[in-house]
Amino acid sequence: MEKVREIVREGRRVAKEDPRRVVHSFKVGLVLALVSSFYYYQPLYDSFGVNAMWAVMTVVVVFEFSVGATLGKGLNRVAATLFAGGLGIGAHHLASMSGATGEPILLAIFVFVQAALSTFVRFFPRVKARYDYSLLIFILTFALISVSGFREEQVVMLTHKRISTVIIGGLSCVLISIFVCPVWAGQDLHSLLASNFEKLSFFLLDFGDKYCEVVENDDTKEVDKRKKDFDNYKSVLNSKSNEESLANFAKWEPGHGQFRFRHPWKQYLAVGELIRQCAYRIHALNSYLNADNKVSIDIKKKLGEPLRRMSLESGKAMKEMSISLKKMTKPSSSDLHVQNARSASKSLTNLLNSGILKEVEPLELVSLLTAISLLIDIINLTEKILEALHELASAAKFKNKIEQPLFSEKPKAKSFVSLRSIKCHDEHVVTIIEDDGNNHGTSKNDNRSKEVSIHEKHEDGDTHVHARCVSCGHSSVCDVVECR
Amino acid sequence: MEKVREIVREGRRVAKEDPRRVVHSFKVGLVLALVSSFYYYQPLYDSFGVNAMWAVMTVVVVFEFSVGATLGKGLNRVAATLFAGGLGIGAHHLASMSGATGEPILLAIFVFVQAALSTFVRFFPRVKARYDYSLLIFILTFALISVSGFREEQVVMLTHKRISTVIIGGLSCVLISIFVCPVWAGQDLHSLLASNFEKLSFFLLDFGDKYCEVVENDDTKEVDKRKKDFDNYKSVLNSKSNEESLANFAKWEPGHGQFRFRHPWKQYLAVGELIRQCAYRIHALNSYLNADNKVSIDIKKKLGEPLRRMSLESGKAMKEMSISLKKMTKPSSSDLHVQNARSASKSLTNLLNSGILKEVEPLELVSLLTAISLLIDIINLTEKILEALHELASAAKFKNKIEQPLFSEKPKAKSFVSLRSIKCHDEHVVTIIEDDGNNHGTSKNDNRSKEVSIHEKHEDGDTHVHARCVSCGHSSVCDVVECR
Repeated sequence: MEKVREIVREGRRVAKEDPRRVVHSFKVGLVLALVSSFYYYQPLYDSFGVNAMWAVMTVVVVFEFSVGATLGKGLNRVAATLFAGGLGIGAHHLASMSGATGEPILLAIFVFVQAALSTFVRFFPRVKARYDYSLLIFILTFALISVSGFREEQVVMLTHKRISTVIIGGLSCVLISIFVCPVWAGQDLHSLLASNFEKLSFFLLDFGDKYCEVVENDDTKEVDKRKKDFDNYKSVLNSKSNEESLANFAKWEPGHGQFRFRHPWKQYLAVGELIRQCAYRIHALNSYLNADNKVSIDIKKKLGEPLRRMSLESGKAMKEMSISLKKMTKPSSSDLHVQNARSASKSLTNLLNSGILKEVEPLELVSLLTAISLLIDIINLTEKILEALHELASAAKFKNKIEQPLFSEKPKAKSFVSLRSIKCHDEHVVTIIEDDGNNHGTSKNDNRSKEVSIHEKHEDGDTHVHARCVSCGHSSVCDVVECR
Repeated sequence: MEKVREIVREGRRVAKEDPRRVVHSFKVGLVLALVSSFYYYQPLYDSFGVNAMWAVMTVVVVFEFSVGATLGKGLNRVAATLFAGGLGIGAHHLASMSGATGEPILLAIFVFVQAALSTFVRFFPRVKARYDYSLLIFILTFALISVSGFREEQVVMLTHKRISTVIIGGLSCVLISIFVCPVWAGQDLHSLLASNFEKLSFFLLDFGDKYCEVVENDDTKEVDKRKKDFDNYKSVLNSKSNEESLANFAKWEPGHGQFRFRHPWKQYLAVGELIRQCAYRIHALNSYLNADNKVSIDIKKKLGEPLRRMSLESGKAMKEMSISLKKMTKPSSSDLHVQNARSASKSLTNLLNSGILKEVEPLELVSLLTAISLLIDIINLTEKILEALHELASAAKFKNKIEQPLFSEKPKAKSFVSLRSIKCHDEHVVTIIEDDGNNHGTSKNDNRSKEVSIHEKHEDGDTHVHARCVSCGHSSVCDVVECR
């Protein structure tokens, strides 16, 4: 009884994790019940006979979760059946010319050679990746047709029936999978990548504060949630095989939603690989949060500002990349965050060069500098990821972000909300003022000109403001949280 | 023409990489030709008829590369066919009681419910890992039997024939795969792990010298080989899925060679995971070999001795673990190497504490200390791996290493070869002398007693000597290369 309850609980969990699974199960049941109608209805049975069974088999074997996998398997199966059917008929014809004794021997030799050769070819890495299933069906069909041809005289008729039932079975799978609640592997790959970006960003956004032991939010629920988000990056470490199979399936899919037929899925794998490289570094960095050789609070405080900025800015860059990938816009705003992370890393280097490390114990130093070096590594990788994402964006023809004009002509005085002052290197203060409805950006300068642009509101409700001080070239990005 | 030549070249490469692939292809061809004899010979055909086709299908689908995979698939298929056959007969019986109009409707409902439910259960992670194929066959057989039962009146007869042909097909695969040049997944997993150990050891044995830029061998061929060995560790990074599927297959295998039926394959995965963790660190360490922030030769020289010893000793520990895994003996000699690596890491820490870092540039420091910290990490992991391997050794009942008696009774004066003097902390010199035929160990003390044990010769021709100075407790391991 306990066992049953456990299974039900597991079933609920599986369904909740991805409700499309339930829909898929219904779809399979539906197609199978439909196809088995071949047996029930006399006219259909008369024309196909026992061969109707192949339609049932095709449905069971071909109907996969995503459209791409179903299409790939279906096409593989139909093509292999056609090709092997042709060859099988040829083999049968050749064998039948060699007389009653020679025929079975010759057929056995054909089957042996064909099976051995095809099995060997299945070991070729490139064949294994895309055409493994084709070859399996090829071996099967060839053996069945050339051999059963030995019995039944109408080999061509048999082959014809087998091929048409396979096509009927395959076609019903493909049609149902495309037109009834389709699950697109391409869309899944796209979302997977965006969520991987997000997972890394959760870590990086929080890491600086955690490392420098800044006091946390008191709300335990909030803390728990953030702790879970923080550890989420671990699932990125092993996403390689998932990404690869999704990309493989996506190649078979026709254009859907925002994706064209020849969407650059390969570039997704390149970006995914870089994200994973970054996740490895993050995994190593995580171990320094609870390391044995604790770095004293004192030195952490001294280095805290640039350290936190490095982590925060690369986290923001990741977050922006996630959002722009989701929206399929060019990730232009991430550039600024990466620049900021770079400049923070420069200030950190300057701090280190100023002799701040003189009094630090060597063992603390090892732990501290390793963490720093990993962070620098992460920033480098973030830059590389951004480059790869830019490539992806231009290959996939992502839209430009709709940016607001730099200065609105005449802000309405009443709706002004003073939002945040941004200090740049030389103490020029840029006060950003937002027109509450339309997200126009403007600036009150002290005495020189500054560039300010406000990007559209993001899903999480934050408005990101990018300001560039024209006089000194320093640029800064801040999140605007309070909006009246 | 060029294309054909390329395919032939690829075929040669695939065959050379693992010649068992060619044998496997022949085996598949053989079994398929054998099983299709069902069609040729009248007596066999009379009893099975068209159902003989199921034997052919079973062979094509079930015959996998390793014994474990074939057994697993075969058992899955037979069990699912039996179970679904029984249920199918039941469903047919139930439906037939509801009259001519009700029967097809009821059958369609049965097929729908069964297919939807089974498809959903296939999403359960634990089911997917081991019983995915079972469920596929279950859906298929149930649909075929309950539905085709609607036509043919002798459902029980049909089911019986289907089950026996599936058993015949499955059994021939299993027998051939076990008795003709078997490929054991368990053995493969075992070898894979041993070779992973070896790959890491190649890196670690060379890393110290490379990092400290000690002049290399002039022989370019030798250098090329070592460069290749050095980079070999990269294949360890992505071995997870391979290990998991091998372990999954190995569970199905009967006892073979040195492996019992319930060999602790799970523990192999645990060791493999730790090896991979270590490989991640090594990957990071490798990037510091050609880092931008070059550490000056001067400081490298100062820290060189302990640094090289750390890397060398952990490399030796890996090498010993690889050898003892291959030979299935307890990895006792690795303990000493790990101890040595630890003591080297202690001397390094002492050196660091002595203020040697005062003059180093901060940026050099980051690069240097990160490399050191990664090395320390690697040593910690080596220790963990050793622990896991000890657990594996006791779970799998590995043999004890045949150690020679500590002091041979009376060494033959003539065959003495003085081999190496080992200095320990307090300058006690242990001169080790080997009796050339039998690998006995002994020691000439200066004036105090020392422990010396010589382990058996290893595959690579090296003899490893472990010496412990009783008076000061310092232990040392050296490779004895020159043996007359």
